[in-house]
Order: sequence, then structure tokens, then C-alpha cells
Amino acid sequence: MLLNCDLGESYGAWKMPVDSAIMALIDQANIACGFHAGDPVALKHAISLAARHKVTIGAHPSYPDLQGFGRRSMTMKHDELVACLEYQVSALSGLASLYAQRLEYVKPHGALYHDMMQNENTRDAVFQAVSGIGGGTLKIMVQAHPAYQSIKDHAQTYGLDVMFEAFADRHYEADGYLMSRHKPGAVLDEAGAVKQAKQIIHDSSIVACDGTKLTMPVDTLCVHGDTQGAVQMASAIRQIIDEKGAQ
Amino acid sequence: MLLNCDLGESYGAWKMPVDSAIMALIDQANIACGFHAGDPVALKHAISLAARHKVTIGAHPSYPDLQGFGRRSMTMKHDELVACLEYQVSALSGLASLYAQRLEYVKPHGALYHDMMQNENTRDAVFQAVSGIGGGTLKIMVQAHPAYQSIKDHAQTYGLDVMFEAFADRHYEADGYLMSRHKPGAVLDEAGAVKQAKQIIHDSSIVACDGTKLTMPVDTLCVHGDTQGAVQMASAIRQIIDEKGAQ
Amino acid sequence: MLLNCDLGESYGAWKMPVDSAIMALIDQANIACGFHAGDPVALKHAISLAARHKVTIGAHPSYPDLQGFGRRSMTMKHDELVACLEYQVSALSGLASLYAQRLEYVKPHGALYHDMMQNENTRDAVFQAVSGIGGGTLKIMVQAHPAYQSIKDHAQTYGLDVMFEAFADRHYEADGYLMSRHKPGAVLDEAGAVKQAKQIIHDSSIVACDGTKLTMPVDTLCVHGDTQGAVQMASAIRQIIDEKGAQ
Amino acid sequence: MLLNCDLGESYGAWKMPVDSAIMALIDQANIACGFHAGDPVALKHAISLAARHKVTIGAHPSYPDLQGFGRRSMTMKHDELVACLEYQVSALSGLASLYAQRLEYVKPHGALYHDMMQNENTRDAVFQAVSGIGGGTLKIMVQAHPAYQSIKDHAQTYGLDVMFEAFADRHYEADGYLMSRHKPGAVLDEAGAVKQAKQIIHDSSIVACDGTKLTMPVDTLCVHGDTQGAVQMASAIRQIIDEKGAQ
Repeated sequence: MLLNCDLGESYGAWKMPVDSAIMALIDQANIACGFHAGDPVALKHAISLAARHKVTIGAHPSYPDLQGFGRRSMTMKHDELVACLEYQVSALSGLASLYAQRLEYVKPHGALYHDMMQNENTRDAVFQAVSGIGGGTLKIMVQAHPAYQSIKDHAQTYGLDVMFEAFADRHYEADGYLMSRHKPGAVLDEAGAVKQAKQIIHDSSIVACDGTKLTMPVDTLCVHGDTQGAVQMASAIRQIIDEKGAQ
Repeated sequence: MLLNCDLGESYGAWKMPVDSAIMALIDQANIACGFHAGDPVALKHAISLAARHKVTIGAHPSYPDLQGFGRRSMTMKHDELVACLEYQVSALSGLASLYAQRLEYVKPHGALYHDMMQNENTRDAVFQAVSGIGGGTLKIMVQAHPAYQSIKDHAQTYGLDVMFEAFADRHYEADGYLMSRHKPGAVLDEAGAVKQAKQIIHDSSIVACDGTKLTMPVDTLCVHGDTQGAVQMASAIRQIIDEKGAQ
Repeated sequence: MLLNCDLGESYGAWKMPVDSAIMALIDQANIACGFHAGDPVALKHAISLAARHKVTIGAHPSYPDLQGFGRRSMTMKHDELVACLEYQVSALSGLASLYAQRLEYVKPHGALYHDMMQNENTRDAVFQAVSGIGGGTLKIMVQAHPAYQSIKDHAQTYGLDVMFEAFADRHYEADGYLMSRHKPGAVLDEAGAVKQAKQIIHDSSIVACDGTKLTMPVDTLCVHGDTQGAVQMASAIRQIIDEKGAQ
Repeated sequence: MLLNCDLGESYGAWKMPVDSAIMALIDQANIACGFHAGDPVALKHAISLAARHKVTIGAHPSYPDLQGFGRRSMTMKHDELVACLEYQVSALSGLASLYAQRLEYVKPHGALYHDMMQNENTRDAVFQAVSGIGGGTLKIMVQAHPAYQSIKDHAQTYGLDVMFEAFADRHYEADGYLMSRHKPGAVLDEAGAVKQAKQIIHDSSIVACDGTKLTMPVDTLCVHGDTQGAVQMASAIRQIIDEKGAQ
């Protein structure tokens, strides 16, 4: 089990800070690519920070929507979406090479992340882009879900390895997707998050909001860098992971 | 002597067409990188077109100014400009790799092209970016100018090879820079352009608007793809180059 | 029956030309507001052109998507969409005042135009914005549709007058919406367009692609300014309108 | 003497917070217009906040440069700059009308603010835009400067009233402009700022960094909303102003 965090999401004068204490706790940095966040200076800063902490780097591309921070679905044509992702991953990849780093994976951001889970055409465009631009070297990170096998099979047609990500601090619906942030109880408190993390780490399962037990493989847990108590929560989850690893 | 042309300058629904007849005549395609023009689909289209015609590809990055088409100077800080160029060249380089192409050079676009000729700090940022992002493989294309030696020396401190570009169809001032487009007579007609091209090709010199003879090495001539008579002019210059080469 | 045309859709160096001959034929200019097209200079140019030809001006706002020319649906929140439209209409309204012009209506552009026909929440945001920003002076232009009464009723709750628009040169589906441009036969040739215009003008009806007769009130016909034969088609439709008016 | 503050500078997910405590202390809110900051929702929020506190509203337009937060000079053509400002002021003006507010003045932002002080052509474009778009109702706010008379005379040719603004917490150069933020000592501490404010309020003068006494009329003092100690400093200056007013 790994820990990942979204980074590089400042834009010019607007800062999206990540507590540097969290860098010592994570394994993977999902770095923005400029289309929902991340001016070129911010991207280089995030890459250099990850490199200094020996944290693996992944690209975190988005729909082209700075104003909406990539959180709004857009009906892009297949070719537009493929090219849009290839462009972003290429840009980040080149910047990473300045710090002698290579991207290891791509994790779509925001609305694109959710759309690709539910819409096979969107997923197809993402897989095509990641497969093509990486020359076969990039993995794809998607949300862990009970229907993981069909996603894996789809990715396999593009020769892509999949990494499944779960959220410690978010409540799940019975259908395996996240409960909307707008609903009460959608975000767990630290105790709830630690409990959910434990179950994910030790049992590969999550209890949905209606009590349904969701079972699915999970490779990496997402932590947030800027919320209050983020460092404490990440630290607690880190410890659970390390203890499991030491067994 | 080579012929180059700016390409990939469409943006979404807005097309900046290049007569495909011109592709058969040129040696180098300067392809936009998305900051003054070139959505990702347009960039891929331009790259594939160049690849099909076995035309060498260079990156044509710009200040970040779509509305101004990169023609407005911007006072970017050194680090901002360096990162801005590294990002653009990286993006195009990755897209080129999809077509098994490699970038051979970088030619700054518009206001940046002119600023770097006159402002040493701007030039320094460009050289640093091109040197760093290319890992030593990219050349820089700048305007041919009587003071070429100091530019060459400056580039040399970054280990960069310089390609000097001249304009067949533009009148020059006595100081070696282009006459502003806003002045009458700034753009030569076909006969004038062919005459100037001949002198550049055969004598490495240009007669400025006041009669001054400007002497400087020229490696490549810029032709435009969308102006009326562009194909005819490019064809005439191509012929002069080929005859020179056959001597 | 009136004739309307989309205008002001250039952006910086990219021109979206409208044959000025068409200006003499139309009654209403739908002018872009900067979010899918229309830099401020282009907007002023379009307004001044309309003013010179005594053509009524309407705002043509869009989702915020220059790269997609407003043709991609975006899942904006209600408040985001309302504010986005209020901003655009305000900007155009102010520019119009420079030429002593007032906006008479708002016609949503592209994907927003289609979304508001099919999605009541989207329509509600549009109605709220148009009602609020116009202080009760602006009309809303939407697509003429057999279900026009429910749209009218909905608009009425905001105190808005509706203008219904039909397309002479586009084939309709049996459900009353336009056939997708991607389908063969979606765009009618001049003869077909003139025939459809005649039926709209004289019988308030359209024959859908499967033969279904669609009946609905139509206040204005849209003509395009930049397609080949646009002037000829607009001229033919103008004549039918004028003959009807003279009866 | 009035107190003013820049507001509305959030953009989508990126927040530029202003301590609401400061709203009770200021007289004038300079609200962004979307080109350097301020998505439409943020603008409406700022306007409503100002309206609730009965704070006068001014437009705070900028060069079109979100990535640079309007802090980078751009060489816009006269017509481009005029239209760019008219568009922004119009947009904000319309949004203000939703809250039954009217703009009272325009204060250019960032690089444009400084450029217009030193470059007469830039100033001319600003004056033309403000004069035209306001229909004679808008004032212009510029930096107070010993050469104030020539600015006033220039504004007078456009029929514009000028409001002169000074900075309590910034050191001045002998030439009457602000010391660059990059120089040590450019920003005064609270004690220094209060002292400078007192002198401005009671003596219409400022002591430049080399001891030169700069004399000039000042109508309004700028306070910042997001810096540490901003509320305390604004509160202290408010008190000095109120005591002066009570004399």
C-alpha cells in the first residue's frame, strides 16, 4: 500500500499550499499539468520538492478549465481529449527530466477522474493517451471499485498497468463511488478515516454508507495536503501501512 | 540555406491555414506550442503533416498570450520565462514523439523573438531554457543580424548552436532589425523579395532601407504560409536555393 | 419573421469573417461576449457594424471555453452559470452603450444553447441571469420547438419574453431538435434551405427527417455569415420574408 | 482622506481572502474585473460584501494576464488597451447593478497602474476608456505624485476627475514612485506605516528613502486586506483619519 497526494496546484499569485511535513510521509506525488492548475514555475517547484523527498512522480492532467479547477465535466471529442492529455503529460514529463525524474503514472484529475470511471468512451480516450504518450512506460491510476476487473481488462487492451486508489477520508455510496461532497457526512473525521484506512489496508474492503461491504484491490491511498489535520491523518495512515509492511 | 515556415497556429474553431503546397517546398517547420496558438489537436496535425513531408521540426514557443497571438511584449521574470519555455518545448517534444519525430531546434515566436534580439536578459532566459530542456540536443534559431558574433558567443556559454534566420519579404532598418510592419514599404512585393533572397543566398547580405549594406551569415529563410502569393514566392526562393546548391 | 446572424466571433489574430453584404440583409446581430469568442476589439467592431446597419443587437454568451468555441457542454453549478452569463451580458451591454446601442435580447451560444433546451436546470440559470441583468428589458432567444409552451411558461415565471428561432439550412429530428452536424444530410443545400424557410414563414412548420411535421411558432431565422453561398441564401430568405410582409 | 482596499481577487478554487473585519474600516473597494483575478462568482461576492458595508465601489481592471496576476507589463496597442478596459469596467458595472450599486471610479491594477504613471500613451488609453465607458460619471484613481498637476491636466482633457492614492506601508523613491518590493526596506512595518500615514494625512507629504520630502495632494490611502497585521494597521490609520476629520 502506498500514500499519494495532489501537488503543484498553485497558479501564479494564487497558492495552493501543501504542508511540507506531508512530503516526508507520502510515496507518490500527483503533479498538476497546467490545465486545471499549475503554472510552469509551480510545476517545477513541485517536481523539485518530490525529487528532494524521493517521492515518485505521476502526472495529474485535467480538462482544460482553470476557472473551474478541472471540477466541471466537459464533453470533449475523443481526439480532443486524447490530444489534451498527451499535451499535458508531455509538458510535465519534460519538466521532470530537468530534475532527472521520470513520470511513473498518470492520475486524471477532478471531473475527468470521475467521468472516466463511469463513461467508457472517456476511459478509452484516457487509456489511449496514457498508452501512447508513455511509450508503454506509464501506469494509469484510477479509483478502486468493485467492478475493477472490467477496468483492468479495458486497460489491458492498451497494454496499461492499473493502480487502484482509495480514499481514507471519504464516505462511499453502495455503488462503489464516492458520496458527493455536498451530502452531509461525505467527509470522514480523523477517527473515521483512520478506521477506514485500516480496513482498506488489512481487508481490501470499505463499508459503504448503507452498510454494504465493498471489496476491491487497493494499491494506494490518497491524502490531502492542505486540509486541517492533514499531516496528522497522513501520519496515522503512514504508521498503519508501515506496521502492515513490517508484519 | 534552408527554408522555414511557421505552422500549427490554429486554435479550436479558428483556423490559420497553411497551403499544403508550401509543405513540399520547405525544410523546417516551426510549430506553435499552445501559448500563442495551437490547441493540442492542431499541434498534432502540424507535426504529422511535417513528418509526412519529411520536414524538420522545431518548437515555436511564445509569451503566454493567446489574445495577442504572442505579439505583445510581457515583462516576465527570469524564472517565469525560463519555465514557460521549458513547459512549451516539453509539450511539443512529447507530441512529436508520438510521430517518431524529434525537435531539432527552438525558434521563439513574435514579441519574444524580437525582445530576445534586443534584450540580453530575455536572450539569457531563452538560451537557458533551450539548453536545459533539450539536454544539449536542441539548437536555437534567432534573427540574423550584423552583431551575430555576440549572440553566438552568448549562446556558446550555454553550449548552444545558433541558426540565423533572415526574411526575404521584409525591409530592414539600418540597425539590422526589421522595419515595423506599420511603416509603408515594410513588406516587399514578390519581385523585391526574390531580389533580397538572391542577395542573401549569394552574398550573405541585405540592403537596408537607407541603403546601408548589412552583412551577416544566414542559415535559413522564413516564408509565410498563408499570405497571398506565398506559394509562388516560396517556390521562386526554393529554386534559387536549389540552383545555388547545384553549383 | 426576422433574420439573425452570429457576429463578433473573431479572437485576436484569428478572424471569423462575416460577409458585410450579409449585414444589409439581417435584422438581428447575436454578438459574442468574449467567453467562446470575441476579444474586446472584435466586439466593438461588431457592435459598430451592427449600429451602422441599424441592426438590432443581442448578446450571445457562452460557457467559458475559448478552445472549444463554446461547443462543449460544461457542468457548471447554478450560481457559476448565472454569474458567468451576467458577466458576459454586462460586458457587451457596456460596450454597446459606447455606440448608443442597447441590447434587446440574449441568445445563448453553442452547447449552452442546446443544453438549455433539454435541461431545465440549465434553462433556469439562463432565465435567471437574463432576467436579472437586464432589469426586465431583455428578451431571451431560444430554439423554436413543438414543446414551446412549457418554455414560454418557464420564462414567464421570470417575466421574460421569448423569441423563437429556427434554422433554414438544418435538418430536424422528429423530436424537434437539430440533426447532429456529424450525420449525413444534416445541413441542407440552398434549395432545401429556401424550401424549409418558405414552410417556416408561411406555415410555422418544419418537416423532420422522418417526415414528421413539426409545428411551432417561429419569430426569427438564423443565417450564417461565413459559409459559402451564405449571402445568396440569406438574400433568398430575405426576399421570402419581405414578400410575406408585403401581403 | 479615504481608505481603499483591493477586493474580489479570488479565482475559482483559489481564494484571495480579505479579512471581513477590514470591510468595516474602509471607504472604497477596488474590485477586480476578471482579467487578472475575479471569476464572476467572486466578483458578485465582493460587490455584495461592499454593498452590505456601504463601501463605495470602484473597478480595478488589469492587463489580460491571469497567470501573472496583472503584474507583468504588456505592450498592448492603444485600441486593444482601451477596449480591454471598457470591457472589464462594463462587466463589473453590470454586476454592480444587480446589487443596486454604481461604480464611482476606476483604479487600474498592477503593472497597468505603474505603466500609466510613467507612460503617457498608456495613461491616455486609460483616460479614454474610463471617460468613454462611464459616460462622464466615473473618476480615475491614480498614484499620488509630485507631478500631479500634469496628470490632472491630462485627465481634464477627457473631462475626468482624478483621485490621488498613496501607500502608507510602502517606502518611496526620490522620484515619487514606490521603491520596488524587491529592495530591502521597501515595505514599512506597522510603526513606520502609521507614521507615514500621519504625515500624509496632516501634511500632504511623504519622506522618500533618501530624505527628500515629496509634497502632493492625497485623497485616499490604500490598505491591504490579506497581509498579517492588516486589520490592526488599517484600524490605526482609520483612527488617524477620523481624528483629523473631527478637528
